[in-house]
Amino acid sequence: MGVHDLVIIGAGPAGFSAGIYAARYKLDVLLVGREPGGQVNEAYEIDNYPGMMNIKGIDLSEKFKQHAERVGVKMELFSEVAEIKKKGPAFILKTDSGKELSARAVILAAGSRKRKLGLPGEDRLAGRGVSYCATCDAPFYKGKTVAVVGGGDTAVISAVMLAEHAKKVYLVYRKSFEQMRAVPYWKDAAKKNSRIKLVLDSVPLEFVGKGKLEAVKIKRGNKTESITVDGVFVEIGGEPASGLAKQLGAKLDADGFVVVGRDMSTNVPGFFAAGDVTNGSDHMEQIVTAAAEGAIAAKAAYNYLKKSG
Amino acid sequence: MGVHDLVIIGAGPAGFSAGIYAARYKLDVLLVGREPGGQVNEAYEIDNYPGMMNIKGIDLSEKFKQHAERVGVKMELFSEVAEIKKKGPAFILKTDSGKELSARAVILAAGSRKRKLGLPGEDRLAGRGVSYCATCDAPFYKGKTVAVVGGGDTAVISAVMLAEHAKKVYLVYRKSFEQMRAVPYWKDAAKKNSRIKLVLDSVPLEFVGKGKLEAVKIKRGNKTESITVDGVFVEIGGEPASGLAKQLGAKLDADGFVVVGRDMSTNVPGFFAAGDVTNGSDHMEQIVTAAAEGAIAAKAAYNYLKKSG
Repeated sequence: MGVHDLVIIGAGPAGFSAGIYAARYKLDVLLVGREPGGQVNEAYEIDNYPGMMNIKGIDLSEKFKQHAERVGVKMELFSEVAEIKKKGPAFILKTDSGKELSARAVILAAGSRKRKLGLPGEDRLAGRGVSYCATCDAPFYKGKTVAVVGGGDTAVISAVMLAEHAKKVYLVYRKSFEQMRAVPYWKDAAKKNSRIKLVLDSVPLEFVGKGKLEAVKIKRGNKTESITVDGVFVEIGGEPASGLAKQLGAKLDADGFVVVGRDMSTNVPGFFAAGDVTNGSDHMEQIVTAAAEGAIAAKAAYNYLKKSG
Repeated sequence: MGVHDLVIIGAGPAGFSAGIYAARYKLDVLLVGREPGGQVNEAYEIDNYPGMMNIKGIDLSEKFKQHAERVGVKMELFSEVAEIKKKGPAFILKTDSGKELSARAVILAAGSRKRKLGLPGEDRLAGRGVSYCATCDAPFYKGKTVAVVGGGDTAVISAVMLAEHAKKVYLVYRKSFEQMRAVPYWKDAAKKNSRIKLVLDSVPLEFVGKGKLEAVKIKRGNKTESITVDGVFVEIGGEPASGLAKQLGAKLDADGFVVVGRDMSTNVPGFFAAGDVTNGSDHMEQIVTAAAEGAIAAKAAYNYLKKSG
């Protein structure tokens, strides 16, 4: 087992960007990640990565991956780091397939995972009408009726996108239209869309169905009602995948994000973090901010390795 | 004169990205800048904007500009903001053509300008053999002999690029090869190139020539020598174009960079900064970090405008 200069954990924009920069610094770098692209793949239409207009998430992921490959980043994809520990100055990592890796520096770019509502019926009906990825599953709901839960960008964009497939989309949000966090552009798009019905000030209580989802029970004021649907999309944001950082004793903030300095360093020497898993970039969690953090982390890792000989 | 929600000063990656995001937030945004693309245009080959492989600087600039145009950013190009002051909650700006603008928030994304050596003959021979932009002027030196001064990425990349045109390129650097700040990839490329001669531990003293540059005088230890050249490229980095920030009383660091918080805010309410002009992104000064800072600044400006009604 050779010792790599750098192992990057995560195959999203932050990880690939860190890889591209690390390769430019001529580091021996290995990138380990499950799905190339990460959450980017789930994006309907990406129009906020400056310079790339109207690109599909999966196509942008492929461009990132190809770029990293071409500059010489070694990759171990469809693989996940399950354990990490520090042994002297080196990091020892174990993948979910039991393979052991060793590195002098590590960048955690594992992103975030979809948050669940924690409702009765949610786990039981997951994949049977309950979905966390509108982009992935929308085509299955052609001519059907669905609900989206949430009020952020992802929820509202998902509703608009689902309305291109489904005949009716309920957008269920616990507060008022004004309080929706999504950007005005998408809020207006949802409001104007005749297939989308806004269900405001409403809290989902339960997912109902025998073999598959049949209805969503919601509470509006003191009233409880049931909306008949074929599918429901839970789009209430993500949780940082910071478990490995925790294993190493890296500092996390109250919401579980890895606390990073201006150079993406953590409190653990040689351990850096980038992208949605961090508290950086004022929590913007955009592709361009993740990519920038990856670049900064690679430079910091390079400086760290140079200093530590 | 209408009051814009936001005026963005600068037409480089930070400015265009800020514009793209501001338009997504449905702000009434005007971008003012001299040359679309800024320093990006001077780049030989860009291979460090993740997802875009081997693109010319000028082509990437055009993509940024088109993206901003398409999402509805109004632009006043080939124009420069010469003066800025705050009047109550609004900013009053005056362009170099005397036009007055008004905005409720401002993002300074003016980048940085090339640094001069301050040597005898430098100003007199500028444009007559003394250049600050290898990408712009390289084609004029086909088959000729040139020198590049500097040891950072820009200097070393410029030397490699000039070697494709000139028959001989002296790379003059004041310290050792090991101390060159450029990334190893480009340093190796320069070292291996038979047309490039490294002139190390050498300090330029004077640019010599009557109507046009004829030689560069350098000092190596106690010895002074003269290198006969047709052109010299001064590539010793940039100075932040933070003059407008200074006019407003925004805090600058010791090197003149605008001091920004995590959300790209300055100490002046409503005044934000992004890109090479700031002390953000650990001073990486890359296209991707500038674009990320632009996005973050736009979000902060949006939040500021919403709060201030």
